[in-house]
Amino acid sequence: MPFGIGVKVNNWQVVILAAGNGTRMQSSIPKVLQSICGREMVALVADALCDAGFDNLIAVVPPSSPAVSNVVGSRATLVEQVEPLGTAHALSQAQALLGNHQGDVLVINGDVPLITQKTIRTLTQSHESSQAYVTILTCNGLPGEGMGRIIRNEDGSVSAIVEEVDLDAMIASVSEGNVGVYCFKSPWLWSALSDLEPSASGEIYLTDLVAKSVSQGHRVNAMPLKDSGEALGVNDGAQLARVREVVQRRINNKWLLHGVNVMEPAFIDVTVKLEPDTIIYPNTFLRGMTVIGKGSQIGPGSIIVDSIIAENCLVVQSVIENAVLEDGVEIGPYSHVRPESYIETNVHIGNFAEVKNSRIGKSTQIGHFSYIGDAQVSQNVNIGAGAVTCNFDGTDKHETIIEEGAFIGSDSMLVAPLRIGARASTGAGSVVTKDVPAGAKVVGMPAKIINNWIPKKK
Amino acid sequence: MPFGIGVKVNNWQVVILAAGNGTRMQSSIPKVLQSICGREMVALVADALCDAGFDNLIAVVPPSSPAVSNVVGSRATLVEQVEPLGTAHALSQAQALLGNHQGDVLVINGDVPLITQKTIRTLTQSHESSQAYVTILTCNGLPGEGMGRIIRNEDGSVSAIVEEVDLDAMIASVSEGNVGVYCFKSPWLWSALSDLEPSASGEIYLTDLVAKSVSQGHRVNAMPLKDSGEALGVNDGAQLARVREVVQRRINNKWLLHGVNVMEPAFIDVTVKLEPDTIIYPNTFLRGMTVIGKGSQIGPGSIIVDSIIAENCLVVQSVIENAVLEDGVEIGPYSHVRPESYIETNVHIGNFAEVKNSRIGKSTQIGHFSYIGDAQVSQNVNIGAGAVTCNFDGTDKHETIIEEGAFIGSDSMLVAPLRIGARASTGAGSVVTKDVPAGAKVVGMPAKIINNWIPKKK
Amino acid sequence: MPFGIGVKVNNWQVVILAAGNGTRMQSSIPKVLQSICGREMVALVADALCDAGFDNLIAVVPPSSPAVSNVVGSRATLVEQVEPLGTAHALSQAQALLGNHQGDVLVINGDVPLITQKTIRTLTQSHESSQAYVTILTCNGLPGEGMGRIIRNEDGSVSAIVEEVDLDAMIASVSEGNVGVYCFKSPWLWSALSDLEPSASGEIYLTDLVAKSVSQGHRVNAMPLKDSGEALGVNDGAQLARVREVVQRRINNKWLLHGVNVMEPAFIDVTVKLEPDTIIYPNTFLRGMTVIGKGSQIGPGSIIVDSIIAENCLVVQSVIENAVLEDGVEIGPYSHVRPESYIETNVHIGNFAEVKNSRIGKSTQIGHFSYIGDAQVSQNVNIGAGAVTCNFDGTDKHETIIEEGAFIGSDSMLVAPLRIGARASTGAGSVVTKDVPAGAKVVGMPAKIINNWIPKKK
Repeated sequence: MPFGIGVKVNNWQVVILAAGNGTRMQSSIPKVLQSICGREMVALVADALCDAGFDNLIAVVPPSSPAVSNVVGSRATLVEQVEPLGTAHALSQAQALLGNHQGDVLVINGDVPLITQKTIRTLTQSHESSQAYVTILTCNGLPGEGMGRIIRNEDGSVSAIVEEVDLDAMIASVSEGNVGVYCFKSPWLWSALSDLEPSASGEIYLTDLVAKSVSQGHRVNAMPLKDSGEALGVNDGAQLARVREVVQRRINNKWLLHGVNVMEPAFIDVTVKLEPDTIIYPNTFLRGMTVIGKGSQIGPGSIIVDSIIAENCLVVQSVIENAVLEDGVEIGPYSHVRPESYIETNVHIGNFAEVKNSRIGKSTQIGHFSYIGDAQVSQNVNIGAGAVTCNFDGTDKHETIIEEGAFIGSDSMLVAPLRIGARASTGAGSVVTKDVPAGAKVVGMPAKIINNWIPKKK
Repeated sequence: MPFGIGVKVNNWQVVILAAGNGTRMQSSIPKVLQSICGREMVALVADALCDAGFDNLIAVVPPSSPAVSNVVGSRATLVEQVEPLGTAHALSQAQALLGNHQGDVLVINGDVPLITQKTIRTLTQSHESSQAYVTILTCNGLPGEGMGRIIRNEDGSVSAIVEEVDLDAMIASVSEGNVGVYCFKSPWLWSALSDLEPSASGEIYLTDLVAKSVSQGHRVNAMPLKDSGEALGVNDGAQLARVREVVQRRINNKWLLHGVNVMEPAFIDVTVKLEPDTIIYPNTFLRGMTVIGKGSQIGPGSIIVDSIIAENCLVVQSVIENAVLEDGVEIGPYSHVRPESYIETNVHIGNFAEVKNSRIGKSTQIGHFSYIGDAQVSQNVNIGAGAVTCNFDGTDKHETIIEEGAFIGSDSMLVAPLRIGARASTGAGSVVTKDVPAGAKVVGMPAKIINNWIPKKK
Repeated sequence: MPFGIGVKVNNWQVVILAAGNGTRMQSSIPKVLQSICGREMVALVADALCDAGFDNLIAVVPPSSPAVSNVVGSRATLVEQVEPLGTAHALSQAQALLGNHQGDVLVINGDVPLITQKTIRTLTQSHESSQAYVTILTCNGLPGEGMGRIIRNEDGSVSAIVEEVDLDAMIASVSEGNVGVYCFKSPWLWSALSDLEPSASGEIYLTDLVAKSVSQGHRVNAMPLKDSGEALGVNDGAQLARVREVVQRRINNKWLLHGVNVMEPAFIDVTVKLEPDTIIYPNTFLRGMTVIGKGSQIGPGSIIVDSIIAENCLVVQSVIENAVLEDGVEIGPYSHVRPESYIETNVHIGNFAEVKNSRIGKSTQIGHFSYIGDAQVSQNVNIGAGAVTCNFDGTDKHETIIEEGAFIGSDSMLVAPLRIGARASTGAGSVVTKDVPAGAKVVGMPAKIINNWIPKKK
């Protein structure tokens, strides 16, 4: 619940319909798990609900879909819809869990991820004040294709929802659509549900409940969206792309208004946290649990995944994965910091450098073409161009330790396990197979100590 | 004819006007050859014609322009317009090739590349059923600048086409434009053409044929485009950019609806083929004859040119040119696979690696900073950081062969021609100038065999 | 004044209001110095003024803000507004500098950077011909939020400007907004200014001058913008992003119409110069004083900063900073040319190469993984994969000289200071610590001359 700010709403129960198979997506990923800016589609729906104060969630999921159950189950109580017999049938699967609930029920499709918490609040308030058995969320202008149309009576109450395929000429011009979010009063809901007649295909639909209420002479309440764009649902890849664009625009706009200088296109996940006075240059990807501190400049073209970047850092055209950068670190262009790396303050990592599972001490310089893997590098170390920690012997990985102020010459091969002492130095091209004492200089292949060499003071 | 699905239309002849010089483009490339998503502009026009079933094409081309003739000549019979005397003059150049044709003639400008095959079919059917001598394609809303305006009679028939420069106040508000696609009946066409009076500049225009038909008392038929955007023509660089955007959106949308998760901006050529359930991350370029298999994830930031990538591959922020990747290959970030490379299943190519004109055997690892050029690398080989095939002696290139299970130490220089035997090993920093027998280990500069070394079993 | 083309306008004085604190930006950079396509916001305003012929500028700046004073001071005479007491108070700070001026005064906010020189000319001409004491620039459609609304009399003259917060129901539907650009007649201006009554907060506003003029029975003139988009002001990060987009679109469109094939997204600074018949591939950044010559192709994904690139160059997915490339240079992908580098004709720099503070002679090849720093490389040199100039000894940087036709073997370490003679050769993996005579070949660590070696003729 990353943006959860809501006050709990206790007199409502919520059912998320997440059982649709989404075959038009042509994807092996279940539709409601499609990723939108770093979050599964259905998780965005759950986020909005929780932010609106509704965190008592039930989700109707497809049978035998552990992927869906795992994701949705962390947020909602699950019930399976074993056969795909329509949305009303899906809701009826939740009845056992809700049967004793004598209040209002909100039903929302898992594929309308743009609905905001504000809309959820306004809709449920509209339902409460209307006293209707049924309230539906509608939109003007039909942002998506295939929407059912809302037919209204002269007094503005809803008379019917007509599916697009059933539109006749007279009502084809109606441009108010059914979004797929409903409020019902129970226990009316449960008796109405049990009364529904299946269609020829054997399916029953939530829209049949509208017809049922109307036929019973009850007024059906409908609330149009202020911003019809929220109604965009996801049924195919093109709609997923449109929805992703809207979510990305919302995220970027949020940060722009918080003092982050986002230059688009920028691909920032919902889960990312940014501080004011940072610059995100174009084509930058900020993924997962990434956090960027004040005064840092990221990009262009950088990819930051699950990393913490402190203040006043510079990461140009580089990839950082699952790492921590302290203040004042400069990286790039074209460098790659791989997982489990910790980079202390004022480290400079230039171009074509790779760091993996290592700690790099403050003010250390790794200018170019180096691979530092499985290493503990202390502060004020200089790593020459092309120096490599040879951490892999063909079977196992080994550790390299480089102590304070060491000078690793260009193209030095540091054959791990290995310790380079403080202020020690390795000659260009040397192949270092044995530990080097503090202050010593080694050269050659294999590298040997040069006598009488006096290390420079830093 | 990559999307050619049309049934042949035999009673029509088609003339493409491709002789315009396009000076406003300020480019050394002839206008109709400007590239739009991997295809020359005029080839997009020819694609639409062929897809609509019209593959009997004549093209009027500029004189002494082998570039245009080469491209257009593969699709159409060519005739040169030696002097630039207007569009009607251009068409008259095709008369000798068409003179005996007693049916309908479709004339289309080579610079309206957004016209779809559906429009071509609808237009020609409209012409056939109208019985008019002349049918013109029009658009409402004037998407481009400088379009001639369609003046209609009260009965809807066309009374004239007025050029933008000649608009007077009374008709300046007309917003129906002339697209530049015409249907004519022959032999009326040929007699009318020969009757046209040149303008003061000596040029004659196709729009003069409209005036001719009207003056003879024949009804001129006009069909407005459903989507005015198709009328966008290319006269300058800004229009080329707009047209390219539309074509790119069409391509991306097509793949989105085929189960490809395209995250925009994505730059996919018309000629590329993608399978469902792939992900194309932003800023990815798929060029030329590239094919991407199911389950693969490409990008962000990758450039793939004329390459075949099989299933379940991962290519992050890397460049692949004219290569083949079998299933399960992982590359990147920041690697470069150059032409004539063949990468077998489950190969891992990490960061800052370059492969050129080489075959890499299955499950081989090339982790970092290696140049593998002109090499045959067998399976399960490990290439250490910074290892290089020294394939060039200053005059000639030589081949390196690395056999199964070899372990190439970091920074090993493999001076080609060279063979590294199966399960052999080279020490870090070694300079290998002689073949290494299977199972041997070499170290040093130049590298020598270490006795009593027992290779590890993989 | 990069686009300065205006004829001087002498009877006007101009005041730029640049003292606003812009707290809603949440940035440590003063608002008027926020960068838009390579130029500070207020500099874009000054550009438009100068291009319109108004280069007699006074700017009201915040107190104790050397950053603002430095930037604005190069274009305008400065006066500080010590207390933030409103826009009219700001203008009154300029009175001492303008008091003797008996003509028209143009006042423009420093945060409306999209106003064009054409608008400035038209507005001032409208003011001159209107004979009004006050002319205001307005826009229809309210592109920004929080704009004051223009209330007009039936005869079209302005009756009042009402702030958004003060709108009542009757005038809430007015959609003509106040842009923040004013023309005044002096000396009326000075007497009116001194007459204004401060508001409850102690501030006085330029809009009060409109009320003053109306109350005196003088007609207030208002000119609506032709393109309302010019009215976009910058008050928060989201507005800055929108303004940046518009400026970028203007820049790109300008080059598209000059024969540059710009493929968007492209990030081109206002200050960059391009020649026709070049291609800028997507995701390319052209920054600062960069110049690109005819026939060159830059990108995709390249970053060029303050560099001169001559004709027919190719820079693919690479970073070039403060460098010069002569004709026919090819670089990339993934290379980095750092400051103070000069690359002669037909040099080839492949992938993962770094050049810093060096001159590279014509037709020299640097294929892969090389660091060439502080070097003078002559022509026709071949630098092998992984060769490095070891320019840093831990304390100082030293120079490397490589003469014509030398062949630097793969992974050669050139320990500077060092001179490699013409047509000399270094073996793979050699560590060269002493100068190499012309024509000699050295190998080993440290490298020694091989006798009897005969260099190849190139």
